[in-house]
Amino acid sequence: MIDITQNIELQISLLLFVSLVGYLIAQRIGQSVVVGEILVGVLVGPSLLGLITYTDFIESTATLGAIFLLFAVGLQTKLEDISNFTSLLVAIFGVIIPWLGGYFVAILFNYDTISAIYIGTALTATSVAITAHVLKEMGKLDTSAAKIIIGAAVVDDVLGLLALSITTEFSLHEITAGSIITIVITAFVFLFLGVFIGIKVFSRKLEQLYEWSSNRKIPMMAFIGAVTVAFLYSVTAELVGLSGIVGAFIAGVSLNGSNIKCIKVGASYLEAIFASIFFVSLGILVDVNAASGVLVFVVILTIVAIITKMLGGYLPAKLLGVSHKDSIIVGLGIVPRGEIAMIAALIGLNAGVIGQEIYSSILVMSLLTTIIAPIFLTKMYER
Amino acid sequence: MIDITQNIELQISLLLFVSLVGYLIAQRIGQSVVVGEILVGVLVGPSLLGLITYTDFIESTATLGAIFLLFAVGLQTKLEDISNFTSLLVAIFGVIIPWLGGYFVAILFNYDTISAIYIGTALTATSVAITAHVLKEMGKLDTSAAKIIIGAAVVDDVLGLLALSITTEFSLHEITAGSIITIVITAFVFLFLGVFIGIKVFSRKLEQLYEWSSNRKIPMMAFIGAVTVAFLYSVTAELVGLSGIVGAFIAGVSLNGSNIKCIKVGASYLEAIFASIFFVSLGILVDVNAASGVLVFVVILTIVAIITKMLGGYLPAKLLGVSHKDSIIVGLGIVPRGEIAMIAALIGLNAGVIGQEIYSSILVMSLLTTIIAPIFLTKMYER
Repeated sequence: MIDITQNIELQISLLLFVSLVGYLIAQRIGQSVVVGEILVGVLVGPSLLGLITYTDFIESTATLGAIFLLFAVGLQTKLEDISNFTSLLVAIFGVIIPWLGGYFVAILFNYDTISAIYIGTALTATSVAITAHVLKEMGKLDTSAAKIIIGAAVVDDVLGLLALSITTEFSLHEITAGSIITIVITAFVFLFLGVFIGIKVFSRKLEQLYEWSSNRKIPMMAFIGAVTVAFLYSVTAELVGLSGIVGAFIAGVSLNGSNIKCIKVGASYLEAIFASIFFVSLGILVDVNAASGVLVFVVILTIVAIITKMLGGYLPAKLLGVSHKDSIIVGLGIVPRGEIAMIAALIGLNAGVIGQEIYSSILVMSLLTTIIAPIFLTKMYER
Repeated sequence: MIDITQNIELQISLLLFVSLVGYLIAQRIGQSVVVGEILVGVLVGPSLLGLITYTDFIESTATLGAIFLLFAVGLQTKLEDISNFTSLLVAIFGVIIPWLGGYFVAILFNYDTISAIYIGTALTATSVAITAHVLKEMGKLDTSAAKIIIGAAVVDDVLGLLALSITTEFSLHEITAGSIITIVITAFVFLFLGVFIGIKVFSRKLEQLYEWSSNRKIPMMAFIGAVTVAFLYSVTAELVGLSGIVGAFIAGVSLNGSNIKCIKVGASYLEAIFASIFFVSLGILVDVNAASGVLVFVVILTIVAIITKMLGGYLPAKLLGVSHKDSIIVGLGIVPRGEIAMIAALIGLNAGVIGQEIYSSILVMSLLTTIIAPIFLTKMYER
């Protein structure tokens, strides 16, 4: 009667309903909502139940979801969190060691260089959202280990996003030393200019706009303005060769200081709807058959992902005088991958650079790290 | 460097930026935001500046915008407002007289029957949002005339939506007396069942869900649930032959009674972003050349639109003992068309039933009524 691939209302209602089921599953199995939503996405996707297929409309909506998600995460990220030395060192080790681990495992399994780079990149970023959520649930957000973890997770995200941008650029153009230097310099110029202009110009302009429009009973102007800035930063990021979500994240970080509450509140509602669609759609894209065909690779990749992140966290923490137990906690705390790994995989898949096999492997790895780390973390804190 | 028709971030940032300009223009010329956004849409559209073209992505996003808009309007509409006798009578006269007026003007100008039906339908609905906004600005919301106007505008919207559904059905299938009766009965069954189930089942379930999920620190579940219901109602409305936005409106009305504040707050943020895109996109679709080619028709249609609504408001109000002045105010109050007229025109255009000429004429008529009515209304109140 109604063609589901043509009817966007039906697609949205199904995706949202399914994401609610994901919430329930997550609660039942004691996992993060993200895990539940992706699992249920896998379940309803083409390779299992076949209820929902990945249409152009879902792709567009999921893209909006990724942007709203990173914008909202940015709005919760304080610039100061990124700028303490222990976190910075943990983040750098926690990016380099997993990247190398992922790259060499991929090479070992005879994947080509570009695929190996994508796999390495997917192993770099820590999920700020998941880590913070777990620590909050355990009431450990105020401990020094937790602060190191959160700070490192934030820097990890930035470095991971940067690695993702470089990887994407690599997969589209020829790789030269000059192009690496160019992209890193451009990225840092964009990061610093973006934050600077965001704080000095856009935050202030939005505050003026908020005051002006509130007096005229149209206060939503400031919120629309903030979302405009998020998309403007996304486009600019893409123009300078970075990933669009880096832009959204930077926009969030630089508007974080503004005292307009409605921006954060509004962004959280946009995130609620569209990030849910994004996570479910990530699951829909998983080809279970492709992933089970490379089961050994998936298992080894996951083990490497866990061990390398633990080392990347433990070593610098211990080196800087953190206790043995807390260093382990720091290591465990940065194990959960999440959004960035999945977005990296998605960008690679959409660009046709990596196949279903690798995409699904990365998703499964990311899911497993997200499930396993909190279990061990809880045990460590209980000791 | 970036192909705008391929880059959704660029499209969204442009549309949102342009809608902010629309807000500013509206303030400058002392008009409703809707007027400003459509005007600026006309300006950037293909027939004037040519900055933005109407892509598939914009169409999808605008559809989401129309749904969020009607859902949010429904969430502000109390069931009691629709059920007082004067308002009901004003609404019925205010739908029938303009419909006939529009139909016969179109026939006079040699348009075919289906186009004439669309034009008649476009003349029926009153814009609740604009009317309420104007009365609020003048501090007259508590007067009895204002209450009649608001009530009638709400019923008008429902009747207008119903007329739109029948018209849409007409334009796709053969017209028989049986099919009219079927669609009217189905529509009323859907309306009553929708409201009943919404209040008795969904509102309560959402309240339970809100309590349950708030205890687990995932309160967004209730909001996601509410938006799911909105889209579910949209799809159901389409399945029974009504327009999808009727469903979203009914979902809003029936969830209005729930005490979950976050649903209204969240919907207002979704509306802020996506309804802005919707209104700008309506302007983008206006072909200035097509409208200026039928200038005489547009002018006469607008005059008929104003006179028939005034009669439709004045006559029943006077009949039921409202004073002469207040009856004129009631008549003027229901003159502004708005969302429904524009959505009717859009559905007709998308279905290929009406051409650019009629679409643009309806948009211009709707804009003019929205601009003219508040001017006279202010003068009447100043007497």
